[in-house]
Amino acid sequence: MVKKITIAIDAMGGENAPEKTIEGVKLFLKNNKTHDDFIINLFGDKKRIEEKLKKENIDRTNLKITHTDSVVADDETPLTAIKNSKNTSMWNCISSQVNGDSDISLSAGNTGVLLVVSRMILKMMDDVSKPALAGLWPNNKNTNVVLDLGANIECDEDNFVDFAELGSALYKSLFPNENPKVSLLNIGSEEIKGTEILKKAFKKLTRLSNVNNFTFNGYIEGNEIMKGDSNVIVTDGFTGNIALKTAEGTAKFITDNLKKSLTKNLFTKISLVFSYFSLKKFKERLDPRKYNGAIFLGLNGPVVKSHGGTDSLGFYYSIDLCYKIVKGNLIKEIKKNLSHLKSDQE
Amino acid sequence: MVKKITIAIDAMGGENAPEKTIEGVKLFLKNNKTHDDFIINLFGDKKRIEEKLKKENIDRTNLKITHTDSVVADDETPLTAIKNSKNTSMWNCISSQVNGDSDISLSAGNTGVLLVVSRMILKMMDDVSKPALAGLWPNNKNTNVVLDLGANIECDEDNFVDFAELGSALYKSLFPNENPKVSLLNIGSEEIKGTEILKKAFKKLTRLSNVNNFTFNGYIEGNEIMKGDSNVIVTDGFTGNIALKTAEGTAKFITDNLKKSLTKNLFTKISLVFSYFSLKKFKERLDPRKYNGAIFLGLNGPVVKSHGGTDSLGFYYSIDLCYKIVKGNLIKEIKKNLSHLKSDQE
Repeated sequence: MVKKITIAIDAMGGENAPEKTIEGVKLFLKNNKTHDDFIINLFGDKKRIEEKLKKENIDRTNLKITHTDSVVADDETPLTAIKNSKNTSMWNCISSQVNGDSDISLSAGNTGVLLVVSRMILKMMDDVSKPALAGLWPNNKNTNVVLDLGANIECDEDNFVDFAELGSALYKSLFPNENPKVSLLNIGSEEIKGTEILKKAFKKLTRLSNVNNFTFNGYIEGNEIMKGDSNVIVTDGFTGNIALKTAEGTAKFITDNLKKSLTKNLFTKISLVFSYFSLKKFKERLDPRKYNGAIFLGLNGPVVKSHGGTDSLGFYYSIDLCYKIVKGNLIKEIKKNLSHLKSDQE
Repeated sequence: MVKKITIAIDAMGGENAPEKTIEGVKLFLKNNKTHDDFIINLFGDKKRIEEKLKKENIDRTNLKITHTDSVVADDETPLTAIKNSKNTSMWNCISSQVNGDSDISLSAGNTGVLLVVSRMILKMMDDVSKPALAGLWPNNKNTNVVLDLGANIECDEDNFVDFAELGSALYKSLFPNENPKVSLLNIGSEEIKGTEILKKAFKKLTRLSNVNNFTFNGYIEGNEIMKGDSNVIVTDGFTGNIALKTAEGTAKFITDNLKKSLTKNLFTKISLVFSYFSLKKFKERLDPRKYNGAIFLGLNGPVVKSHGGTDSLGFYYSIDLCYKIVKGNLIKEIKKNLSHLKSDQE
């Protein structure tokens, strides 16, 4: 018997939990009716979870529930949360990975606490000095992995090399038939541009590009992130977070303005009738919910963070991401990459 | 007699110069027919400039031409350019500010060389330790000033305070009736977030907010840049450049996808007929040419950098920006702000 993929879900994390998270689970089950290779373990208030499962008429064949007493509050700091967190849905969800009861954890709860608690419970992988938060971005050809998005404000060249390895492994696990192409985010594409740390990372990655599982494409600038020529974009957590949020803000600004333009008067409203399906496709392609789920990499088990404010569809996409990551053998891919890195350094 | 505003233009900088720059001048003259309070001094190859002026049938009442022998090449590094630059249109254009022959310089030439040469010729203002490159961004309410966009990769808290003063002065000169609201770009809005340097700058700006010509709004994240609650956004040159380029890339990605959607088939093409004017307005509002022109602040005279690849309309907007900056007394505003800063430190 092949071992089933077990996804541990913090059912109580994020806004409107557990209702929203369970509706996400329902969508996932509906879209995966034909296969039977997974189990979803829901951590949280058993009574509330069961009520919602019943109400939604959800088949429980591939589900498990693990009762937990409390929830990490949204305004809690990592410090107080750790003291109070042993009985929380988040803590127990992640802990289930330690003895192999699950392969991946998913939570829409407090990000700061999730990062600290994950690191405490799962511990860092040997040969990785800082873990990173990776996100998925749409690009002209397919999807990018961008990291770090905020776990580490300051990084050195070895962190950048680790991020390249971790990000490539993630990309490979999600798109097994493609070759990861790594770029460093910088303010110019010439070798002389940027900080000293970036220049050192550039040299190291150029050397590793030959022995490793990725191609190093050099520097790219912010306007090239979505071009699709590179699919793993490496940066520090401060810059990555600013870039991600700026892109989100710009997208919102443009689509808000477009919406205003297209609903202004009768003529533009008529235009919507004719372009309805195309605009719907346009909206779907750029739907941020499709890219919901940041992956915490570098620990002895993968943890996925869903946006706290997403809806059931967004939560569904993050469950789907968990499934794909385990199916694609992320941890094995990471270890393969790190072993290359190690042999290069020896 | 009131002294006329004199704008020195490097007619030879950027792609398709001097044709494009002179077409930009033509547009400016056309839009400013009714007033007579400015002179444009064109630096470059006199013969080529005169040919183009004649061809375009441009009235020369408010124009001057200063002949120069050579041009800074696009691929030149600042080091070689300085050696060769004494006879260039760029060098002479900026130099004209030293003895008061002009009030501001504009060039679409090589950015790196422009920054170095401007600093060499105009020198830094007393009390400013690093100059900054400021840009204009559209937001939901009006326009933002964002700085630094790439002049300084690394900044300390005093640089951030300087940028707040310089940016506020620029905002005040462009929008005299509005109150500059300054924010620091960070990866969270809580006081405890971000680097040590940002935390120190936060404290200093909080204190200065009471005595100075701006209101300090605290931290904002990347997704709030275009919201319009703040109108002067302060960051270091690395982060600012990444944010600007990422916003440009995101805007291009979205509008390209939209264009594809709306020209896909007969139905969507019909929709364009009905929404033509609204979409045109939408496009106009977000036209990057409208925001063409980065302002180099902190020197003893303002220098504006136009995108090298912009067209005549984009170049026109940067001439218009120069006119408004001088009209709004930028340098006086900066000195006023810096004097407050100085008296606070004493």
